[in-house]
Amino acid sequence: MPGTPPTRFVYLGPEGTFAEQALRTLPAAERGIRTPARSVPEAMDSVRDGDADAALVPLENSVGGAVTVTLDELATGSPLVITREVVLPVEFQLAAPRLLPLTEIRSVAAHPQASTQCRGWLAANLPDAAVVDVLSNAAAAISTAEGVHDAAVCAPIGVPRNGLVVLADKIADRTDAVTRFALVTRPAPPAPPTGDDLTSLAVSIRHDQVGALLAVLTELAVRGINLTRIESRPTGERLGTYVFFLDCSGHVAEPRMGEALQGLRRICAEVRFLGSFAKHRWSPAAHAEGIPGQDGLSDADFADSAAWLTRIRDGRVT
Amino acid sequence: MPGTPPTRFVYLGPEGTFAEQALRTLPAAERGIRTPARSVPEAMDSVRDGDADAALVPLENSVGGAVTVTLDELATGSPLVITREVVLPVEFQLAAPRLLPLTEIRSVAAHPQASTQCRGWLAANLPDAAVVDVLSNAAAAISTAEGVHDAAVCAPIGVPRNGLVVLADKIADRTDAVTRFALVTRPAPPAPPTGDDLTSLAVSIRHDQVGALLAVLTELAVRGINLTRIESRPTGERLGTYVFFLDCSGHVAEPRMGEALQGLRRICAEVRFLGSFAKHRWSPAAHAEGIPGQDGLSDADFADSAAWLTRIRDGRVT
Amino acid sequence: MPGTPPTRFVYLGPEGTFAEQALRTLPAAERGIRTPARSVPEAMDSVRDGDADAALVPLENSVGGAVTVTLDELATGSPLVITREVVLPVEFQLAAPRLLPLTEIRSVAAHPQASTQCRGWLAANLPDAAVVDVLSNAAAAISTAEGVHDAAVCAPIGVPRNGLVVLADKIADRTDAVTRFALVTRPAPPAPPTGDDLTSLAVSIRHDQVGALLAVLTELAVRGINLTRIESRPTGERLGTYVFFLDCSGHVAEPRMGEALQGLRRICAEVRFLGSFAKHRWSPAAHAEGIPGQDGLSDADFADSAAWLTRIRDGRVT
Amino acid sequence: MPGTPPTRFVYLGPEGTFAEQALRTLPAAERGIRTPARSVPEAMDSVRDGDADAALVPLENSVGGAVTVTLDELATGSPLVITREVVLPVEFQLAAPRLLPLTEIRSVAAHPQASTQCRGWLAANLPDAAVVDVLSNAAAAISTAEGVHDAAVCAPIGVPRNGLVVLADKIADRTDAVTRFALVTRPAPPAPPTGDDLTSLAVSIRHDQVGALLAVLTELAVRGINLTRIESRPTGERLGTYVFFLDCSGHVAEPRMGEALQGLRRICAEVRFLGSFAKHRWSPAAHAEGIPGQDGLSDADFADSAAWLTRIRDGRVT
Repeated sequence: MPGTPPTRFVYLGPEGTFAEQALRTLPAAERGIRTPARSVPEAMDSVRDGDADAALVPLENSVGGAVTVTLDELATGSPLVITREVVLPVEFQLAAPRLLPLTEIRSVAAHPQASTQCRGWLAANLPDAAVVDVLSNAAAAISTAEGVHDAAVCAPIGVPRNGLVVLADKIADRTDAVTRFALVTRPAPPAPPTGDDLTSLAVSIRHDQVGALLAVLTELAVRGINLTRIESRPTGERLGTYVFFLDCSGHVAEPRMGEALQGLRRICAEVRFLGSFAKHRWSPAAHAEGIPGQDGLSDADFADSAAWLTRIRDGRVT
Repeated sequence: MPGTPPTRFVYLGPEGTFAEQALRTLPAAERGIRTPARSVPEAMDSVRDGDADAALVPLENSVGGAVTVTLDELATGSPLVITREVVLPVEFQLAAPRLLPLTEIRSVAAHPQASTQCRGWLAANLPDAAVVDVLSNAAAAISTAEGVHDAAVCAPIGVPRNGLVVLADKIADRTDAVTRFALVTRPAPPAPPTGDDLTSLAVSIRHDQVGALLAVLTELAVRGINLTRIESRPTGERLGTYVFFLDCSGHVAEPRMGEALQGLRRICAEVRFLGSFAKHRWSPAAHAEGIPGQDGLSDADFADSAAWLTRIRDGRVT
Repeated sequence: MPGTPPTRFVYLGPEGTFAEQALRTLPAAERGIRTPARSVPEAMDSVRDGDADAALVPLENSVGGAVTVTLDELATGSPLVITREVVLPVEFQLAAPRLLPLTEIRSVAAHPQASTQCRGWLAANLPDAAVVDVLSNAAAAISTAEGVHDAAVCAPIGVPRNGLVVLADKIADRTDAVTRFALVTRPAPPAPPTGDDLTSLAVSIRHDQVGALLAVLTELAVRGINLTRIESRPTGERLGTYVFFLDCSGHVAEPRMGEALQGLRRICAEVRFLGSFAKHRWSPAAHAEGIPGQDGLSDADFADSAAWLTRIRDGRVT
Repeated sequence: MPGTPPTRFVYLGPEGTFAEQALRTLPAAERGIRTPARSVPEAMDSVRDGDADAALVPLENSVGGAVTVTLDELATGSPLVITREVVLPVEFQLAAPRLLPLTEIRSVAAHPQASTQCRGWLAANLPDAAVVDVLSNAAAAISTAEGVHDAAVCAPIGVPRNGLVVLADKIADRTDAVTRFALVTRPAPPAPPTGDDLTSLAVSIRHDQVGALLAVLTELAVRGINLTRIESRPTGERLGTYVFFLDCSGHVAEPRMGEALQGLRRICAEVRFLGSFAKHRWSPAAHAEGIPGQDGLSDADFADSAAWLTRIRDGRVT
């Protein structure tokens, strides 16, 4: 039922990935049922079909960028909304079935994005090992446990689960990398504003690109709405037509966001509302509000202006 | 009482000016009491004081421009609102106490704006006559009737009233000049929208001029509101601070205008609402709506976007 | 000859007005020949015809606003340019042929704008005197000297010139009112930038008003050009078509102004350059530069970006 | 040497991928030396190191979107520029070592993006076959030739090269999918404008996101530059900081583009010029020029405005 807290969770599997680690930071998920899915589309379809109440899927990584399959799934098919974001530090470990000197390692299994993020460390510490691409961080751990490769680059959660031991910790070249995950559910009224919320949208613009994208940003700026993220994805129709994913500061229940959303609805070919939710404490510091120097955009200003409009419509000009 | 049709009218006198002529185009004024005032401030104060229900005063002339005293009176003091506009062709006549050849005319009385508008005709037809500045079109006719001058440049209404005869008709260099008048009353609920209305505002911007005026125009453009006129007047405080008078297409009762007005209220130092009223049939043809190429600004679009917002706030994303 | 300092000056007369007072603040004019003109058009035509080298005419008053006849003359006819601005405090005096108690004054001659600016003082100090409209401040002094009226509201320069004595000094309700005058010449290369200059323009926009005026302001804002003044004047063609007079911070010789002027030239129906000149020290304090928060608009930034463009056009990408 | 036509080409391998197919559409490459690289970074580094003259790498796919590794390589390291774009239809074939009925196929090797693009066809025609993820289209063909899998989803070029036969042609769900490739070289003067060119940029904005991205789009729109594509990539520093990749209509040698580039250089934290090159004939139809309805942006308009500026700077106002 809409509004009921979710108890059945699905996440991007296999077991032992960062997504499982992220999901378990939520108390309700720690208490509930957690099921891995083989892919992001499978995870989201199980929510659409009612087999799960919520799915935890990756949105973007501070080094690797957007997780495009998640964006594409959010933009198409039966609507889903984001109700939580979770931001998780991404730490890679080098693991093997047993302790051994690095010089003995001849092959290292790694997901390509993982080996990219650890490129410097691998070049410095395993210059002679072959890095073998595999299809997930969990697959790297599993194939290493099975003896196919000498070592694996994997997530901390995958090490004990596959009976491996840690040879080296925090081997990513950037020690501050994070991945942002979304908890998505079937549409339901959003939780009340916390004062530090995000609203996610998928927007298809009309006609030509220039004027239209400028007009979208203007609708937001005029209401003092900050854009904290913009991603473009092809519609699949042809080169040059895109869906834009916008993360905006604010909550759909707030007047300024309500006015901006109505404006976008009017001028865009399509606007899909993807949810209003509290910013995770890991989110970057709030940006300056609105067009720099533009005042008059507080909730109190909106209330005052609405009251004034009522007065002048009634002929009570003072 | 607010809402009661006015019966006691005051206009910028003296009798025999274009303002009286404009007032008499209104049936209610033709039936009611019409009193001349010595000045625009006197006319408007008599409405403020309750001595009259409505005042007819000039707003602008297509050749001479804004009537600044009217703008200043609208922007200051106890609020008044415009409830009608009247656009009147401005036709000047050369008149004298009796028919006489133009060659016999040695002095012509004229208000400076009138002689300016007839400059070419006077130079061609009365090259040797002295043009004497007087303080109103009516004063030109009166002083000529009294024999102070040989002829007068005056409004048609002033000719019979002063026992003059027409020596030459339509002597203005531009035959299509018009003056726009406003009927102002104490604040009252505006008449319903007609679909072709204007809303007048007096706006004081904040801080620096650049960003602020750009922001005002953007608030209008984003809602597809056309600006049909902008005039600036000093606030009197110092050089460089202005009040802007805006005529905008649309009616305060319409959603898009309501949203734009609220936006201006929020970002401006002060917004004074000066009325929503039907465009006079003499008004220039409607300009293109909104930023060229920007769709989605019809009343139906506003209604649709409001309904959509209600749905997504309720969790009914479809 | 263009570039030669002017020696023959004309000013808006008659003698004894604020314009003469303003002209005499210029050393070259104090040394040169000074001739009064009967009107602003006459003053400017004498420069166009070569009878004078420069004309001093009023542009705007901090209380009364724009001097529209000057704007209209600048926008039409053979081009003239502004080479200096002079800002003069406007002080009114009450003067009479001899000292007499205020209670004995029954009639006061005043130009309507002068009596408006002294309205409070006159009501408080001469409640029973009739205020008689005359056509200039000088005319008030002259008619009072001739005994037609008991006293005159006039400019300080008109008092000794007409053998009057001062009954009351600084009688304007606002003690800080100023009038801004322009010295106009035939087109000539402007004086070099001083670092605190203004550029004046007369701009006719295309098509509809909204988008076009917004586009004009955007061309300026994008180059960080401040608009310190905007006035609209009718073109005379019909209601709703205007020429806009813009005063912009900066000098035509500067890169940013050059780029902005080219932008206006491209998008406007007509741009008339009315001069670049040093701001008078009385001008209001400089406004914030450009769109608030927008950096990168210094002359050094422009020079750097031009050098960079040259490099990338040459294939020297570094 | 800069300016010399390239003869040594490298492309994203292995042999038999779409990149090789795209490269061979260029006559110079057909005549020259063609070497596969194991990855996009390796291909681009071999150009940086002087081991190759030009690299052909994928930029984006009309279904799958941006090829992020290419964008990241263009934005960082020693500068390279795009000198050509090649747009190639993406056609997938189902191939096997020998002709066999589809019902006999139990396993199909496919790169995940390929199986995604053929998902509908596979579900309809091979409902019972296991789809096995492999790391490239070429790897699918190779592993099938080696007998590891029964069939492969692969590019046409990979079929004869691995001794396979086609079981089904054009099996992608979208028959009009295309991939856009770039030919990149070390910096050199761009080829002259053709009248239908693109300019690619990597832009890092300053400060907060809202005002800054709006300002970037405004710099382009004011000069009538169309944005045909915008992609964002993380800088790697933290969530919420991005590099934007812009494809703009026009050529660096054109005045309007020169002015826009200088504007971006001034207001952005960093602008990296990625090349001006002729649009491939497969590119989408040209979009409307500039902000709709904004005239005055032709090369002739720019030349006229530059000449006018020279005149007014010289005092030749006419």
